[in-house]
Amino acid sequence: MRKLEDLQSLIATSVEKLQYPAYPAELYEPISYILSIGGKRMRPALLLMACDLFGGDVEAALPPALAIEVFHNFTLMHDDIMDNAPIRRGRATVHEKWNQNVAILSGDVMLIEGYKLMMEVRDNILRRVLDIFNDTAVGVCEGQQLDMTFETSNDISISEYINMIRLKTAVVLGGALKIGALIGEADDKDAELLSDFGVNLGIAFQLQDDILDVYGDPLKFGKQVGGDIISNKKTYLLIKALELVQGFDAEELQRWITFTTFDAADKVAAVTEIYNKVNVRQYAEEEMQAYAEKAFKALELINLPEDSKQYLRDFADGLLVREY
Amino acid sequence: MRKLEDLQSLIATSVEKLQYPAYPAELYEPISYILSIGGKRMRPALLLMACDLFGGDVEAALPPALAIEVFHNFTLMHDDIMDNAPIRRGRATVHEKWNQNVAILSGDVMLIEGYKLMMEVRDNILRRVLDIFNDTAVGVCEGQQLDMTFETSNDISISEYINMIRLKTAVVLGGALKIGALIGEADDKDAELLSDFGVNLGIAFQLQDDILDVYGDPLKFGKQVGGDIISNKKTYLLIKALELVQGFDAEELQRWITFTTFDAADKVAAVTEIYNKVNVRQYAEEEMQAYAEKAFKALELINLPEDSKQYLRDFADGLLVREY
Repeated sequence: MRKLEDLQSLIATSVEKLQYPAYPAELYEPISYILSIGGKRMRPALLLMACDLFGGDVEAALPPALAIEVFHNFTLMHDDIMDNAPIRRGRATVHEKWNQNVAILSGDVMLIEGYKLMMEVRDNILRRVLDIFNDTAVGVCEGQQLDMTFETSNDISISEYINMIRLKTAVVLGGALKIGALIGEADDKDAELLSDFGVNLGIAFQLQDDILDVYGDPLKFGKQVGGDIISNKKTYLLIKALELVQGFDAEELQRWITFTTFDAADKVAAVTEIYNKVNVRQYAEEEMQAYAEKAFKALELINLPEDSKQYLRDFADGLLVREY
Repeated sequence: MRKLEDLQSLIATSVEKLQYPAYPAELYEPISYILSIGGKRMRPALLLMACDLFGGDVEAALPPALAIEVFHNFTLMHDDIMDNAPIRRGRATVHEKWNQNVAILSGDVMLIEGYKLMMEVRDNILRRVLDIFNDTAVGVCEGQQLDMTFETSNDISISEYINMIRLKTAVVLGGALKIGALIGEADDKDAELLSDFGVNLGIAFQLQDDILDVYGDPLKFGKQVGGDIISNKKTYLLIKALELVQGFDAEELQRWITFTTFDAADKVAAVTEIYNKVNVRQYAEEEMQAYAEKAFKALELINLPEDSKQYLRDFADGLLVREY
């Protein structure tokens, strides 16, 4: 089995080699630009990893892996417009550097370029691979829409929230693994199980991210602790807290949410105190654990040798025990 | 051969039957909305027509025909954001009725839904059909980008302009015909020739549109005569006139282009007079005729019985001799 880091750097090198036409410059330059900004290349690496685990040719899986990365960056380009984000990974977003129309249209063409790369698979799996890609892509769009809708909604349930993060974040991990497995000639059942592993792991990972925002070690987390609290982001913690708080604490939490001017540190401290009172951290960790267990359960059922399963377990552990 | 009107109404009925999920409402309602606004359904009808001409099963060609219509409406949804257009066919545009983010994301999902429909073809042509669809979709994006770039550019050549309208308007006609031909089991050569017919006819049609804006019968044209002149739209006529005018007329034309306040009727009259002096109408008609001839020449080479060719000739004549 190839190491994850090796697969990630194989992707990084291959992304650099992607060439787009020079004309029209405003259509294609943003594609090279956003792809050059980097990131961990985790999604395409998962596709290669799945192919490798089933004994497939990793080189043959490179174009579909790049398709996943191009697709992912298309979603970032459009999400950044929708979120009005000026900066991504320390660099100006495309709509800031060029303009919004350029970001819309370059994003559109990236989605098509994603399909072109995804089609570079054997004829006998072409339709199945594209079906998975379609479902994944639709899921991500649905997740993004729900995320935006939830911003202005006041009664989101935990199950609606989990469904949103499943669609927005987790299905693409499942899709990448499933496509990689098919390229590696896994049978449909194993491919589906590996997808389940990825989706549930993705949900667990996102829940961990919610927890780390509040309870993470600021030095290791790499983001501002309490950023979600400051922006009233509807995370698992906030939704659960709103469900649990009563009396004075409920009023207090509502007050902090509605304040338009406040001291950030005061808000983080006050909301965290309410979170602690109603034990949301524990609920979140149990939920996260439940999804991690679902992931491991799917993994056990896959028809792969023990060392391959151990590789996937280690990968999941590395992802989930992070920066506390 | 089925009549074009029958194919158009078959499309109209089938579009009405397209069902999208109810949730998330803001993602899917705009799709049904924009598709319900109507239009002539010309592009999907061309796909069905091509399939029918080669003796294919028109019913089997319906999903790919709908794919072309869904794709076309995706481009309209995003173009309307980019053009800041409040109204389309007398109805509020999606970004006006909902908001811009909804129009971006619904458009994205429409493109994916287009791929899903386009995949409903036989396995043995799946890859070829999707290759054509990819090329068509990329071409339309390139054309839209060039159209936007030209808005703020002052030295566009006629050949750059023709290339832009080829990409923005004509390739999708060619693509629709080519896909329909393949579904109808035409061989690659005939499919390619039918595509050439469509692309050249599309260019001729767009040039005619440029001419009609200035010289069309206002009662028959259905748009405000001189609309392109009022908005300084870089049509064939304006680009050619800028190339040809000299001395006082050149200054006069530049003046009208740079005026920010003016009487619309005065501007249309003055610019039309300059157009007449340098004979741009004749140049435009000759160019249009040249592309129409290319279209007919490709048509002659197709291996189809004479009555099928006559059907296509009649179709082209109907499109090109319009509302003077």
